[in-house]
Amino acid sequence: MPDFKPGPLLSQIDSPLDLRSKFQEEDLPQISQELRDYIIDVVSHIGNSHFGASLGVVELSVALHYAFNTPNDQLVWDVGHQAYGHKILTGRRDAFPTNRTYKGLSGFPKRSESEYDTFGVGHSSTSISAAVGMAVANKYLGKEDLQHIAVIGDGAMTAGLAFEGLNHGGVTNSNLLVVLNDNCMSIDPNVGALKEYLTDITTSHTYNKVKDEVWNLLGKVSKFGPNAQAIAQKISDSIKGSLLKQSNLFESLNFRYFGPVDGHDVINLTRIMKDLKDIPGPKILHCVTVKGKGYKHSEEGNATVWHAPGVFNKDTGEIIKIAPKSPQPPKYQDVFGHSIVELAERNDKIVGVTPAMPSGCSLNIMMKAMPDRAFDVGIAEQHAVTFSAGLATQGLIPYCNIYSSFMQRAYDQVIHDVALQKLHVIFCLDRGGLVGADGATHHGAYDLAYMRCIPNMIVASPMNEEELRDLMYTAQLEECKGSWSIRYPRGEGVMVNWKTPFKKISIGAGRKVRNGEDIAILTIGPIGNHALKAAEQLAEQGISAAVYDMRFAKPIDEILLHEVFTKFKKVITVEDGCIQGGMGSAVIEFMADNGYSAQVRRLGVPDRFVDHGTQAELYAECEYDQTAMVKHAQEMVQKHKSISIAG
Amino acid sequence: MPDFKPGPLLSQIDSPLDLRSKFQEEDLPQISQELRDYIIDVVSHIGNSHFGASLGVVELSVALHYAFNTPNDQLVWDVGHQAYGHKILTGRRDAFPTNRTYKGLSGFPKRSESEYDTFGVGHSSTSISAAVGMAVANKYLGKEDLQHIAVIGDGAMTAGLAFEGLNHGGVTNSNLLVVLNDNCMSIDPNVGALKEYLTDITTSHTYNKVKDEVWNLLGKVSKFGPNAQAIAQKISDSIKGSLLKQSNLFESLNFRYFGPVDGHDVINLTRIMKDLKDIPGPKILHCVTVKGKGYKHSEEGNATVWHAPGVFNKDTGEIIKIAPKSPQPPKYQDVFGHSIVELAERNDKIVGVTPAMPSGCSLNIMMKAMPDRAFDVGIAEQHAVTFSAGLATQGLIPYCNIYSSFMQRAYDQVIHDVALQKLHVIFCLDRGGLVGADGATHHGAYDLAYMRCIPNMIVASPMNEEELRDLMYTAQLEECKGSWSIRYPRGEGVMVNWKTPFKKISIGAGRKVRNGEDIAILTIGPIGNHALKAAEQLAEQGISAAVYDMRFAKPIDEILLHEVFTKFKKVITVEDGCIQGGMGSAVIEFMADNGYSAQVRRLGVPDRFVDHGTQAELYAECEYDQTAMVKHAQEMVQKHKSISIAG
Repeated sequence: MPDFKPGPLLSQIDSPLDLRSKFQEEDLPQISQELRDYIIDVVSHIGNSHFGASLGVVELSVALHYAFNTPNDQLVWDVGHQAYGHKILTGRRDAFPTNRTYKGLSGFPKRSESEYDTFGVGHSSTSISAAVGMAVANKYLGKEDLQHIAVIGDGAMTAGLAFEGLNHGGVTNSNLLVVLNDNCMSIDPNVGALKEYLTDITTSHTYNKVKDEVWNLLGKVSKFGPNAQAIAQKISDSIKGSLLKQSNLFESLNFRYFGPVDGHDVINLTRIMKDLKDIPGPKILHCVTVKGKGYKHSEEGNATVWHAPGVFNKDTGEIIKIAPKSPQPPKYQDVFGHSIVELAERNDKIVGVTPAMPSGCSLNIMMKAMPDRAFDVGIAEQHAVTFSAGLATQGLIPYCNIYSSFMQRAYDQVIHDVALQKLHVIFCLDRGGLVGADGATHHGAYDLAYMRCIPNMIVASPMNEEELRDLMYTAQLEECKGSWSIRYPRGEGVMVNWKTPFKKISIGAGRKVRNGEDIAILTIGPIGNHALKAAEQLAEQGISAAVYDMRFAKPIDEILLHEVFTKFKKVITVEDGCIQGGMGSAVIEFMADNGYSAQVRRLGVPDRFVDHGTQAELYAECEYDQTAMVKHAQEMVQKHKSISIAG
Repeated sequence: MPDFKPGPLLSQIDSPLDLRSKFQEEDLPQISQELRDYIIDVVSHIGNSHFGASLGVVELSVALHYAFNTPNDQLVWDVGHQAYGHKILTGRRDAFPTNRTYKGLSGFPKRSESEYDTFGVGHSSTSISAAVGMAVANKYLGKEDLQHIAVIGDGAMTAGLAFEGLNHGGVTNSNLLVVLNDNCMSIDPNVGALKEYLTDITTSHTYNKVKDEVWNLLGKVSKFGPNAQAIAQKISDSIKGSLLKQSNLFESLNFRYFGPVDGHDVINLTRIMKDLKDIPGPKILHCVTVKGKGYKHSEEGNATVWHAPGVFNKDTGEIIKIAPKSPQPPKYQDVFGHSIVELAERNDKIVGVTPAMPSGCSLNIMMKAMPDRAFDVGIAEQHAVTFSAGLATQGLIPYCNIYSSFMQRAYDQVIHDVALQKLHVIFCLDRGGLVGADGATHHGAYDLAYMRCIPNMIVASPMNEEELRDLMYTAQLEECKGSWSIRYPRGEGVMVNWKTPFKKISIGAGRKVRNGEDIAILTIGPIGNHALKAAEQLAEQGISAAVYDMRFAKPIDEILLHEVFTKFKKVITVEDGCIQGGMGSAVIEFMADNGYSAQVRRLGVPDRFVDHGTQAELYAECEYDQTAMVKHAQEMVQKHKSISIAG
């Protein structure tokens, strides 16, 4: 790791107080430039970080901390990956190179990390609601002078939660400023009617143009004498007073609307923000920014690629990918992306749905191949699910792909709109299990538990690429129709030759993948591959471990479990998900219901929130990696053997 | 039950086809009147039904089925309790008196009940998303002539899901009509900026007035000669073409807006709907209706009371309440409502939050007593939770009261915004467990399971009023701060003298409520009172059953469980919630983790969706009422005893 050198001004900023006390407005452009350079410098070296979003809000970050009295004024960043500049300005400049590494800085705002991080965030669209809460609280507490600022992207604005926050915020007479960071993007290009509306406003094709035209024309009308002038004035007043006020979506919701303004003119931004402090009530400032701003390659290149490019040469813009010497297994998301197209080619009822993650879940492959059958609905998980339910009522078979942790946002829709009606919707939960560098907000730790308690829901997870394909194939068969949850993790699989022929898997059927005598290891999902390695390692130590790939947390394979509990008195369950209520709980529920007794250890995500790190580091920390499985099996079998010997 | 007689025209309508083929437009007012009379007649007698909402949409129901070709055209009702007229017109006239009774008609649209019920619903705000799905599906399927109509109230429109549906619907070029049924109400009066906006539109204070004024003034301008006229025309075109188009929130989202129109003029409604069929793309028809319309007492009375009045004298409007001969225990919701005020009087950090259920959860008591400290945020569960999180960051202690089944809609916010940040928010989950007549959509069956898997979450349920008060008291103590879920059921408690002094309960501490020798019954929540009665009944049969009130599903009382499993080999767990992953699972997880072996039967809501009926009927059906507990205990102990004797 090189020794990163911030510029001369940035070097002097250890807190926003330094920014405000040491520098004049005219210094802010240079500070912005140094901040941008520092982000480029660090991120290009460390990789594994977000990039475009934070570059786009460099000036906003500087202006906000200069204009407002943070941390007393409450600055709430939406979707935290835009907050690098904020982190660097708030005492974490020198720690920034540890961004998103194990025990290092979180890639998102986090209350436990800094008093400047007023609200932890990783999922989108929470900032307005949180800021409304803060503003209402401080009004009640008599702290009327405090400001509350939510910084939210246009992509995040499409989520229902943001609208709910606006609807309430508009009737709270408190110091609330929503800064709309409009870059026409979420991670993928933003979609939907709101996006078109914002584009309309900013490009002046309607709103500004008409506003100007009417103004101009009224000016001309006034040439026709005093009477005409009076009339024109009346028109003008009417329009100004009500019609124009209402002619804006945000004004409809009782927010005073300002903008659009250039989000990269830091001096102007600072002045506007200072002015806005004096205007009471809910306000929105519409800033137009460019994702990846100020770095030629990201500004001109593909914004989705530069969202999180990995390591790159900052001078040439070359993204550095180490070419593997031999063919590597694909990412699970790509197995999904290619397989849905193959299936859709055979079954014309199949359609695909994603809430704003076409590149993240690889539905973009289908969107390109079959544009009329793949739908990106924007950041709107609830709608993605109920929309899928609507599609299913007409006989289509939607594969609705949502990250496990984001699916939490559509939980009611899964229960009330899909499972309750037994609709044939296939949820594909990408990023199931610990996700790595994104950390606590993004770990898909709970889906096995929260899906398993829903009636009618088939809860499955494949051990490898072939099983993912076979589960996807099985789920669309007429005789297997129902509500499915198929979850798989972030990252690569294990099969180089993954494009296996589709085979039907019996619903609820697990399989034995390794014989053994001393202990049984029951797994679900790709963590089973670690169990296989653990069994090999145990074999070398004279412990014979069987491995079972359960494949379904529900319905659980009762035939297989009868076999397991008849044969084994030592059982380990392993899942890349929470221990409470997951597959392991299903196994011991079976055990209790059927009167078996065995020593069962359940391994998985413990009952605490797990921070960021690589997946391997976190599996180890949570004690369900290969090493931990070996250790637990040893303990259980040794103890048993020594008791046997002693007895 | 009297023999209900529908009017002469309604008697001839066994399906919408009858309505369309047998009658002319001019018959529709009489049909509407007969439909209204029939609803009043039946509901006033059977009680236990919703009322005001369906009366408000009588004309809409008739017009929709007359104008559209149902069931081919897809009619989607939002929040199903407005759909009685629809049910009566679609073949369920004679079955309507069984409404909401065990094995009778559901009080909500239900796909399995009728092909006219295109989308099952009980929770609000799903209709637009579902209709967008249907419309997109039928477009893909080449059924371009089908119409898709979502009927949604203004109250439901505030939920994020509705906005997400609009945002997507606005860019789908499909046959989508949103009928906005604007009666300024959800169950309680609607709140928020959107409501004010709709009121503005309908009362013409701004939108219509300004539109008219500008039109008039432009007319006057045109008197100033040809040049002025040309200019005026240009202004006019500009305004018509863009500004006015944009001057409406729905037009901003690319819906063509029509209205407001009188939602009780059935002939005009029918004509407008027929016209709208010919206009392609997304459209919104804004209908103004009166909740409780056409029945003097509900129109003039308190709309919240007439939302679901129970049995009433239809002639006098007298709501018939059978006065109890002796003092009765209060409803749990009222214990909450009064206790939060008591606590808030002592602790000025306490505030209350409800999403549109002030009368349903009795927060209205606090809203009246302390209006600046109790917040109704409208139908917006997600916002209610994140708003509460925001309040908590500033040191306030929000009691956020949400029905258990509605909390499903804020699951991500509970995890990501509250628990992950260890914020001191106290969720009070009313309607936990089977709720009775509202049925499958409303049962609070899953919260113990879906809350228990969340780290940092304290998951509790009181056995009676005193424990509810004590849990509420404990949760606000500084030394007990954290994220709490306190769930209690719909309906009355068990204590006539419920206003007991507040006492602290140790977090995670259960209690033994009855000694026993043969078997232990472990319960959580008020179902424990049924267990006590079961134990008494068992005692008469010579079976000695201990009863433990666990109080917490998490942290589970390990000291108590060591006692239980040391002493007992027969254990029954009982909860008014799903068996998978709930309190019973926590108990057997403990058993497995600690190497105990005992025969454990877990009683609770089985792994299927449970329909409507009284709570007692449903507890019996699901086999966790007193009778079922006795039966299971007998089986377990007899078997044991006979084995003991045999052995």
